[in-house]
Amino acid sequence: MKFATIKNENGQWIGIVNDKGSHVLPLREVHEKMSGNAYIPADMVQAISLGDQFYQEAEKTVQWVKDNKLESDFFLPLSTVELLAPIPRPAKNIFCVGKNYAEHAIELGSKEDIPEHVMVFTKAPTTVTAHEQNILAQRELTEQLDYEGELAVVIGKEGKAITKEEALDYVFGYTIINDVTARDLQEKHKQFFIGKSLDTACPMGPWIVHKSAIANPNALDIKTTVNGELRQDSNTEKFIFPIEEVIAVLSQGMTLEPGDIIATGTPAGVGKGFKPPRFLKSGDLIEISIKGIGTLRNKVE
Amino acid sequence: MKFATIKNENGQWIGIVNDKGSHVLPLREVHEKMSGNAYIPADMVQAISLGDQFYQEAEKTVQWVKDNKLESDFFLPLSTVELLAPIPRPAKNIFCVGKNYAEHAIELGSKEDIPEHVMVFTKAPTTVTAHEQNILAQRELTEQLDYEGELAVVIGKEGKAITKEEALDYVFGYTIINDVTARDLQEKHKQFFIGKSLDTACPMGPWIVHKSAIANPNALDIKTTVNGELRQDSNTEKFIFPIEEVIAVLSQGMTLEPGDIIATGTPAGVGKGFKPPRFLKSGDLIEISIKGIGTLRNKVE
Repeated sequence: MKFATIKNENGQWIGIVNDKGSHVLPLREVHEKMSGNAYIPADMVQAISLGDQFYQEAEKTVQWVKDNKLESDFFLPLSTVELLAPIPRPAKNIFCVGKNYAEHAIELGSKEDIPEHVMVFTKAPTTVTAHEQNILAQRELTEQLDYEGELAVVIGKEGKAITKEEALDYVFGYTIINDVTARDLQEKHKQFFIGKSLDTACPMGPWIVHKSAIANPNALDIKTTVNGELRQDSNTEKFIFPIEEVIAVLSQGMTLEPGDIIATGTPAGVGKGFKPPRFLKSGDLIEISIKGIGTLRNKVE
Repeated sequence: MKFATIKNENGQWIGIVNDKGSHVLPLREVHEKMSGNAYIPADMVQAISLGDQFYQEAEKTVQWVKDNKLESDFFLPLSTVELLAPIPRPAKNIFCVGKNYAEHAIELGSKEDIPEHVMVFTKAPTTVTAHEQNILAQRELTEQLDYEGELAVVIGKEGKAITKEEALDYVFGYTIINDVTARDLQEKHKQFFIGKSLDTACPMGPWIVHKSAIANPNALDIKTTVNGELRQDSNTEKFIFPIEEVIAVLSQGMTLEPGDIIATGTPAGVGKGFKPPRFLKSGDLIEISIKGIGTLRNKVE
């Protein structure tokens, strides 16, 4: 099931996107019609914090619509609403794993840059933007704006010192992130944060796919195109540190919380990896596709 | 004026601490008695987001209590309430400036480690803990727990591309942070985030001093003691990048928001700087004092 955050004249709400990706069900409204109670919140992090029951109620609602043949009554065309980032305002910075594919570490340096231990930096919540929203070029600040297609994990429940074995139980679902990076600022300021945290530098979406629809998150095709040209073409089986290990390391001394977002790193093929480098310019269209999730599409302004 | 976040049987509220630091005024309750309206929120970030009017109403309230000789009616002994961190749950990670004092950069490396540009990493909001709360030793994870006494800036209003000249207009006030660091994890995971983000690794407080009480934040004595022994003894005039420059660089491409917290870096004298290093152990009492703000005191559990 695909969980989206939607905005229209009724405000902001959680929608369930159909399999085709063409229509969306206003979850709270329809759930209330079915059950008579206003259980479903408008905010995705609040909803995820409700635990497994939120997912079960969502499933029940979709089944009820199907059983009563109410699809055409309740599903709205996605083209008539605004799709926000699934978590438009995370409650903390986005955790990002650095250099989690060996070929990417090598393209930015050499074999010596392949990390021995999980490396994590963060992006400010102010970076988040939606599918089909523009990425600011910020030309006055950077001449080396770059894309990084990444699978992102959305945490489902609070946990600390989570073992690898139980790690996936703590996941709510998966989405796509473009970890947009100003390479010149990343280099200039040493720690990655500044070069990773320009406003709009974190397109996210188009939605969160519930974990039950992803058999193995460590075996997903991931592709990035720029203006239709294939730049990144890999599979998450190439992770140096699989998702279970990332969750275990992050949570070893730090509590993870529902709605936390972990970007799992980008494969080879970023602009800086080309000789000469191929950085983003105004008008470029970046599309990141992950098998089983969808395509995140953004243009540089 | 000193703004604290307090908890007692009435829930969580903003208190104004008296000059001596002995008593606290429940701001919302007393402001409501004075004005007849419930203008003051319970949450510090919400209050700061109200802008200058929040500070003016707080000033009016304290003046009204004084004029009507109501001190003994309204001020509660601090010993009878719980002091929380002034911002117990920041809305994003805490921004931290790395190596902002030359002698500290040298003690951890050499002159070559003195940064040419502002270096920023972050600490997760889950690290925040209050004055006189314990710091977890987390011995199973780290054998190199270290203290870092720092002046922290609390942002007062939203801004982007803020110039150095106007930077201090964007400040609400100042507090103290202990940027507790697991040196072994900091080194092992390369990017600083993991080693800086253990739960309780960010004692903050005891309160926020409004900027009007701090003539020059770039000229404040800062001292850290461990079990009464002086370890850090410096002055913020030794900043490599003064507060105005840090705000300008951070906001160049990223929007700063009310309630954002910037830890400005630590002076020389951290445990790792000694030969042999003197890391924290259970029972150690760390006290960080900054002129005009107060003393932040925490014990290692």
